[in-house]
Amino acid sequence: MVVNVAIVGVGLVGSEFIRQILTTQSKRIAVVAVANSRQMLTSTTPLTTSWKDDLASSAAAKPFTLEGFTASLSASKASHPTVVVDCTSNETVAAYYPTWIEAGFHVVTPNKKAFSGDLALYKRIKELTSQAGSPLVYHESTVGAGLPVINTLNDLVNTGDKIVKIEGIFSGTLSYIFNNFSTLDTQAKPAKFSEVVTVAKELGYTEPDPRDDLNGMDVARKVIILGRLAGLDLTQETIQIENIVPESLRQADASEFMKNLPNFDTHFEQLNKEALQNGQVLRYVGLVDPVHGKSSVTLARYPASHPFASLKGSDNIIAFTTERFPSPLIIQGSGAGAAVTAFGIYSDILKIAERTRH
Amino acid sequence: MVVNVAIVGVGLVGSEFIRQILTTQSKRIAVVAVANSRQMLTSTTPLTTSWKDDLASSAAAKPFTLEGFTASLSASKASHPTVVVDCTSNETVAAYYPTWIEAGFHVVTPNKKAFSGDLALYKRIKELTSQAGSPLVYHESTVGAGLPVINTLNDLVNTGDKIVKIEGIFSGTLSYIFNNFSTLDTQAKPAKFSEVVTVAKELGYTEPDPRDDLNGMDVARKVIILGRLAGLDLTQETIQIENIVPESLRQADASEFMKNLPNFDTHFEQLNKEALQNGQVLRYVGLVDPVHGKSSVTLARYPASHPFASLKGSDNIIAFTTERFPSPLIIQGSGAGAAVTAFGIYSDILKIAERTRH
Repeated sequence: MVVNVAIVGVGLVGSEFIRQILTTQSKRIAVVAVANSRQMLTSTTPLTTSWKDDLASSAAAKPFTLEGFTASLSASKASHPTVVVDCTSNETVAAYYPTWIEAGFHVVTPNKKAFSGDLALYKRIKELTSQAGSPLVYHESTVGAGLPVINTLNDLVNTGDKIVKIEGIFSGTLSYIFNNFSTLDTQAKPAKFSEVVTVAKELGYTEPDPRDDLNGMDVARKVIILGRLAGLDLTQETIQIENIVPESLRQADASEFMKNLPNFDTHFEQLNKEALQNGQVLRYVGLVDPVHGKSSVTLARYPASHPFASLKGSDNIIAFTTERFPSPLIIQGSGAGAAVTAFGIYSDILKIAERTRH
Repeated sequence: MVVNVAIVGVGLVGSEFIRQILTTQSKRIAVVAVANSRQMLTSTTPLTTSWKDDLASSAAAKPFTLEGFTASLSASKASHPTVVVDCTSNETVAAYYPTWIEAGFHVVTPNKKAFSGDLALYKRIKELTSQAGSPLVYHESTVGAGLPVINTLNDLVNTGDKIVKIEGIFSGTLSYIFNNFSTLDTQAKPAKFSEVVTVAKELGYTEPDPRDDLNGMDVARKVIILGRLAGLDLTQETIQIENIVPESLRQADASEFMKNLPNFDTHFEQLNKEALQNGQVLRYVGLVDPVHGKSSVTLARYPASHPFASLKGSDNIIAFTTERFPSPLIIQGSGAGAAVTAFGIYSDILKIAERTRH
């Protein structure tokens, strides 16, 4: 059976996802609607590669509203399962998931907001999707992009394994920064912290304001998502978050921040030296710790033999320590970028397609 | 909806799987039949923890035949989806999968035979399960036990990613042997190859005759499974397999083999020394190489910085290099043992339960 897909948010990830769909599998998946924050394009026949032009044209497209978008899908829902794909990072769109679920639509998304924000919204979504026959909400790409993190955690939990610890490097940006800043590789040229941040910014690895990476909030959201899947009611208030932006630079404007960051190079150099002298490296890690109830985001140290110490580039890594996996189950690889994020979304869609074929 | 599960083969893995089912999720999954090679126990009500006694009792159980077992399931199939779980490593049972699929049963198994043996059987199974609404055949536990290897590879392939290379250490036994024999860790006490094999045998990590590990056939089967999922028609004849059992010991009886293995310690020591002097370690790896058409099982060398070099214990590791993951997607962890193998089976069953709930 053909699954209808409707996409809200057609930036880098959304566009790449549509490209992947249109170049493969087109028999099983039909793109029937696309929208950006201003316009929407809906159709009774599958959209083709001309969708970008059509969405930009005032003749083919209509002004976007969540209500109008939803109404257009409801008309065609009867004949095919419909999946709404939220490729925004928008809170208002996330708050709309219950409406979509109640209308009978599945939801697939890389948007972290619904799973890491308001706990009441999260529980509402969980409740609405827990009954037999209810729509499915999949969000593999919210942590580690397309790496099979969420599915693996769900499998562990749903088969009754006991989660002892989930630990990982969940930010490509902070992976890159500390893999380069803190290394036991004697061939590597030592760099100042501010220099590494500057290069990461120039390569496009950081947010426009690198403090949005260094403050730990993105990693915290991922810790909250994983913790909730493991059964913990985590919120930003209940986990410890180590913000590594120097306190005096938190209120400065963005250019002031970059200009003054070199003043703190000795601070970071000192931290690094203390680690390296003990045969350890610095890594910025998220931790879900159900046993001690202490989930956190911290700048921690790892010995050379630890898998986190040998991480390269901007790769993510996650280690699940469980009753069945006392030696942890580890997943690593590229955890950022449009191609792998779209891959995670596409995998989720295929699972829904398979799960609705009977 | 409740899914009925019927298990053939109740050794370590089968028994552990039933234990996991009975201690969790019992509302969604009902064990309705169990069988060993002699007896079978079928029931219209879910089996309970007394199944072992009942299967051993001549009053409750009947003599096992594949035909009788299948007939008993057909009677109850109408009301619930039924999954046959093959926990044997038997070729005759594997050859029966087409009959089960045609009877409308799903199949879940850690048995490698159907996916790594006769290519005609494999293609028949693929054909029978490729139509919309046809039963599903899942075999996550055939490679790396419960590690999410098969599902991840299927996701990559089905979403149109291009597989460049699949490389891994797929044998817990050979992982243990070479992690201990060949290490750059200067703290580790050097050991002779025959000593490491002897310890591995004593710990129960090897087959009763360790040559069944060292000949590479088990790893070859896993390479064939992965290669076929990646679209290659691999067979034992078309891949290169490096048998590391010394040639003069291949025909000896098992005790002669263990007694004479120390005569070859200098051979292995020499190989190891050549690697270590270059900052490398020896690892016994399987390779699927669609680009060059050269899939293989070989004793290869890896530098200290490679993830394969820092592997510990008897862990498995697999690296998928693809178009979307030029820096490979890596999965590692315990790849042997009843608990994690049963976990893989159980995860597959839950996927079928989800996929048939609509």
